[in-house]
Amino acid sequence: MKALVYHGPGSKRWEEVPTPGIGEATDAIVRVDAVTICGTDLHILKGDVPEVTEGRILGHEAVGTVVETGPAVTTVRGGDRVLVSCINACGRCAYCRQGRYGQCQGGGGWVLGHLIDGVQAEYVRVPFADTSLYPLPAQVTDEAALMLADIFPTSYEVGVLASHLQPGTSVAVVGAGPIGLAAIITAQLFSPGLIVAIDTAEARLDAAKRFGADTVVNPTRDDAVHVVRSLTDGLGVDAALEAVGIPQTFELCAGLVRPGGHVANIGVHGKPATLHLEELWIKDVTITTGLVDTFTTPTLLRLVAAGRLDPTPLVTHRFELADIEKAYDVFSRPAETAALKVVLTR
Amino acid sequence: MKALVYHGPGSKRWEEVPTPGIGEATDAIVRVDAVTICGTDLHILKGDVPEVTEGRILGHEAVGTVVETGPAVTTVRGGDRVLVSCINACGRCAYCRQGRYGQCQGGGGWVLGHLIDGVQAEYVRVPFADTSLYPLPAQVTDEAALMLADIFPTSYEVGVLASHLQPGTSVAVVGAGPIGLAAIITAQLFSPGLIVAIDTAEARLDAAKRFGADTVVNPTRDDAVHVVRSLTDGLGVDAALEAVGIPQTFELCAGLVRPGGHVANIGVHGKPATLHLEELWIKDVTITTGLVDTFTTPTLLRLVAAGRLDPTPLVTHRFELADIEKAYDVFSRPAETAALKVVLTR
Amino acid sequence: MKALVYHGPGSKRWEEVPTPGIGEATDAIVRVDAVTICGTDLHILKGDVPEVTEGRILGHEAVGTVVETGPAVTTVRGGDRVLVSCINACGRCAYCRQGRYGQCQGGGGWVLGHLIDGVQAEYVRVPFADTSLYPLPAQVTDEAALMLADIFPTSYEVGVLASHLQPGTSVAVVGAGPIGLAAIITAQLFSPGLIVAIDTAEARLDAAKRFGADTVVNPTRDDAVHVVRSLTDGLGVDAALEAVGIPQTFELCAGLVRPGGHVANIGVHGKPATLHLEELWIKDVTITTGLVDTFTTPTLLRLVAAGRLDPTPLVTHRFELADIEKAYDVFSRPAETAALKVVLTR
Amino acid sequence: MKALVYHGPGSKRWEEVPTPGIGEATDAIVRVDAVTICGTDLHILKGDVPEVTEGRILGHEAVGTVVETGPAVTTVRGGDRVLVSCINACGRCAYCRQGRYGQCQGGGGWVLGHLIDGVQAEYVRVPFADTSLYPLPAQVTDEAALMLADIFPTSYEVGVLASHLQPGTSVAVVGAGPIGLAAIITAQLFSPGLIVAIDTAEARLDAAKRFGADTVVNPTRDDAVHVVRSLTDGLGVDAALEAVGIPQTFELCAGLVRPGGHVANIGVHGKPATLHLEELWIKDVTITTGLVDTFTTPTLLRLVAAGRLDPTPLVTHRFELADIEKAYDVFSRPAETAALKVVLTR
Repeated sequence: MKALVYHGPGSKRWEEVPTPGIGEATDAIVRVDAVTICGTDLHILKGDVPEVTEGRILGHEAVGTVVETGPAVTTVRGGDRVLVSCINACGRCAYCRQGRYGQCQGGGGWVLGHLIDGVQAEYVRVPFADTSLYPLPAQVTDEAALMLADIFPTSYEVGVLASHLQPGTSVAVVGAGPIGLAAIITAQLFSPGLIVAIDTAEARLDAAKRFGADTVVNPTRDDAVHVVRSLTDGLGVDAALEAVGIPQTFELCAGLVRPGGHVANIGVHGKPATLHLEELWIKDVTITTGLVDTFTTPTLLRLVAAGRLDPTPLVTHRFELADIEKAYDVFSRPAETAALKVVLTR
Repeated sequence: MKALVYHGPGSKRWEEVPTPGIGEATDAIVRVDAVTICGTDLHILKGDVPEVTEGRILGHEAVGTVVETGPAVTTVRGGDRVLVSCINACGRCAYCRQGRYGQCQGGGGWVLGHLIDGVQAEYVRVPFADTSLYPLPAQVTDEAALMLADIFPTSYEVGVLASHLQPGTSVAVVGAGPIGLAAIITAQLFSPGLIVAIDTAEARLDAAKRFGADTVVNPTRDDAVHVVRSLTDGLGVDAALEAVGIPQTFELCAGLVRPGGHVANIGVHGKPATLHLEELWIKDVTITTGLVDTFTTPTLLRLVAAGRLDPTPLVTHRFELADIEKAYDVFSRPAETAALKVVLTR
Repeated sequence: MKALVYHGPGSKRWEEVPTPGIGEATDAIVRVDAVTICGTDLHILKGDVPEVTEGRILGHEAVGTVVETGPAVTTVRGGDRVLVSCINACGRCAYCRQGRYGQCQGGGGWVLGHLIDGVQAEYVRVPFADTSLYPLPAQVTDEAALMLADIFPTSYEVGVLASHLQPGTSVAVVGAGPIGLAAIITAQLFSPGLIVAIDTAEARLDAAKRFGADTVVNPTRDDAVHVVRSLTDGLGVDAALEAVGIPQTFELCAGLVRPGGHVANIGVHGKPATLHLEELWIKDVTITTGLVDTFTTPTLLRLVAAGRLDPTPLVTHRFELADIEKAYDVFSRPAETAALKVVLTR
Repeated sequence: MKALVYHGPGSKRWEEVPTPGIGEATDAIVRVDAVTICGTDLHILKGDVPEVTEGRILGHEAVGTVVETGPAVTTVRGGDRVLVSCINACGRCAYCRQGRYGQCQGGGGWVLGHLIDGVQAEYVRVPFADTSLYPLPAQVTDEAALMLADIFPTSYEVGVLASHLQPGTSVAVVGAGPIGLAAIITAQLFSPGLIVAIDTAEARLDAAKRFGADTVVNPTRDDAVHVVRSLTDGLGVDAALEAVGIPQTFELCAGLVRPGGHVANIGVHGKPATLHLEELWIKDVTITTGLVDTFTTPTLLRLVAAGRLDPTPLVTHRFELADIEKAYDVFSRPAETAALKVVLTR
């Protein structure tokens, strides 16, 4: 089969590799029908994720069709249309028992395109198929489902749910890239009273408005803390969601929340940030971090099927699977291409 | 009357001042029967709390007897034995409506011995008496009640409850001074599976053991992260409680928790700390800060009255009220005096 | 002034009575600008609420203008436009301290038009004004605010919040009168996956559809349990909200929920119901009852002000205050008049 | 092998049957080392549980040693000492994903000694071994572990956790048989302020006192509602736990709770009860029912291992496995034998 193979920092190739087969009794082999590229894949290509070794097939977000299952698999079978989630769950460890699949201690967690071969390929072997694949209802399109492989559960779980959004509360989303926009969309499931989006790119702020932000702030032009406080009785927002991944944006979030507020970090960070405990110790602030667990995937699928949630407007570009190198190029230059999410299909 | 008056950094005096009277309809005047000194009072004396101005009577932890009440006060009256809590609640603002009295926006919060005259005096004016004084059951002694004016609700709310301790969970308490020890005592209300105390002073570690720690670690001798992980399947504790107030101890706490764990900051900090987001972003960690709200004061009083909680072993020294300058001296040199809490009575 | 006075079962009169004045330091006098009639007022008129004695002014839902305040009132003053809520809060008792104002032990709870004179009058004395009146933002009309005096917080707190609705969950609302419709409207703040309305009156089912129900069932025509299970994988709904107040509808709710589901009783009951513990003991069901606390009134006002919630479509008839006896007649015959809520203004 | 086989109502026999073997890839075969008898086994013998058919091996609480595992089993292996829990979990269905194993839709739930052969035998086949067996720490004895197979997680989950006990709250336990006593013991993990035990048998009330009840009430002698209110400011307890299973005791629980309180039903009921909604609708009461899920089994094992919980005092009689018919006789006449739990070992 063909697959996108990592060959060390800066190097990848769509090339011929052996088609995978069943290894463990709990495995499934899935034919990839649609796949997307994640910001994390770009990090890997820069060499920032040393666990990814040369020869690894990349990718952790796909929709496909089951072609074969191991003898212990009972909930999916050949021919089933399924979502291949970015997180695998052994289903047996203490973390999986609590729905914290991202922290799985039994061989799951984020492994696809990371510690084992991923989904940017014609076929993929999926471990723990029973607890890691999600059969798709007929009314959910491949493209909509694909958005639920990583980005939507990440924004919803690590951002919206972690910060305990409730009807009427106020939320600031710092960073209006794909993750921030998915946070703005899923925040609206709880009918917040105010959504403020903050980003330095005007095009992303326009998108934020289109996707539901009430107010947008460009911190290169306006003082975000000042604007947010003027909209919130001088106190700050109930929840600030970090969706960038650099120290400055995290520190901005800590300055945006009111006493009793939440800072939910969604961004992937490479450096430490400064935590101003000399101001925060007295302020009743909660800060949360986390990797997605995908425990909300069934809920999000149900909302899409019911027409309550539409994740597809995030898709800006579409390609054939064989053109994946071109797709990487477009996705890696969002300032020029305005790319949010790209979709590759057979 | 006599009172302990602040005269600028380094200077205080037990001297004659005017006896306070009712100002607002919601005030009460309380005769002080027992009072204690807080670590925060020492900070004020160093000049670290600039909001405290010269001429201010210090102190925010007392037990006393109501002598007069304003016309709008309905729940206490002259002769009632009461706890004067470190936090006053207007009872009307959005924060008070949610039991977050420490963040009161209506004139309450921490004001005694800070923004208005405090309790290290023969009499004190207490604003919002109905929502700030706690009548004492006969079976609760002055000394036991006094420990509930600040230190016990602080450790219980900001440490134990904020970190969601549950039966069987594991907890590390960093800092075994009065606040850390009160955290160790109140943590046991939830029957945790393991309590580890960490401090650099052997005397404090001995106290920690006496008050219920299962294991103690002196980081000048042993690697605390290593010891804690070896006791917790290599993963770390469910909750780490910071009870010191310096960057190093906060950062230690962040290193002690398992994926999915809580860091509850109780300490008063004067400097920022480093938050290692490059490690924590993926780890499902929750960090909380906060000022005590004293919403648990009725619960703690009930537990003391029922014989379920005994806070008095923290009292190491007793003085007459007029000897308060001597008491400050003893309390400010704990390494030599082994002082935990000092009690002054009429 | 003029007021609607109860003169024993079946008898009421709009007549001249003394204008109220300040009694306690915490009172306010409010000029009534808009008022509505509650189903409970009809119960009182039938003699079903013996605590209401002859001579009592009826009514507990109003919007008005403060004309005078007692000396201890600090958060409202003469000229303020305010919502007079159906629940008063002493703000001092253990229940008020937890936001459970409906259970106030200090003289509040449901008292207006019940234990003290109510709001169906030109003026009303409101006890505990600071914790019982809600100043109105300019963008909230009298009519919208009036819907928040009782019916919307009741449906939202006792129905929607008590049953822990979450995005994607399924809910059945049994009874599509004003309370049931307000439940259907406020349920949507949480983006449920499915809303089923059940009622025997076709006109009310039409209203339910208009206000957001996905499916409606008339149990005189279809088996509600069968229909609901067919929509929910054979298991039943996550939450069933009782909004009628008779044994049959409560028992229907208990049959509609899935294992792990909630039955939230909102209806006012006069008779016991049968609880089929022989089926339910094994089923992980939660049943909740409750009087409204109005702790969500500020949230609901914020949602109305932000344009996120519009309660005014429930208003079907409008009258002048002096025509209140005619308004009672219309409101008491909904089957003929199609009345949901009636609004009376000066 | 030998096993206790059900031969229709009133009839059972310790007899020779085929030794079980691995059926599914996820099965394990366990040699039974210790086993106990449950009140439910007596119900089955009366013919009250028609799902149990003739020829079924009884029993669902055991401790044993793994002798063989299916090819998909990864977390236990031959020689492991394990707890065989009363609940099996497929680990894949929506209920198992949320830790609600008792409601498993994938072939688990309560099946042992019910829908498949049970543990009152020399060997047992355990389905879904990875998610249904609990390896035992060396410091937990067989007898202590055996008490965690059903009775302790049942009382803890369905009683103590469901009613949200917290430090300082008050709890009434109605019924002081084995389940009620286990509730009294596990309630103390949360340091409640008051535990009242109610039973008609003096011997059980004595046991209740010994195991931690503060007050006991015999309703044949005293009015339980009156006694409980006199101990709780006239309001009632925060939580009432039903541990009998008849309408009268459930209705008593509903009368014992304060406004805002919880009734947690643990008892197995065969008849409906009357729910006095005409009193309860206004009272903010929460009622919960449920089958045990055993999600707390690892926590309880940890507490036993740490010496924080000792369930063994409930064991009153010990037998050899071959004497199981004698053990049934003793267990079925508790009034004469004072039996609480009986333990049978090889």
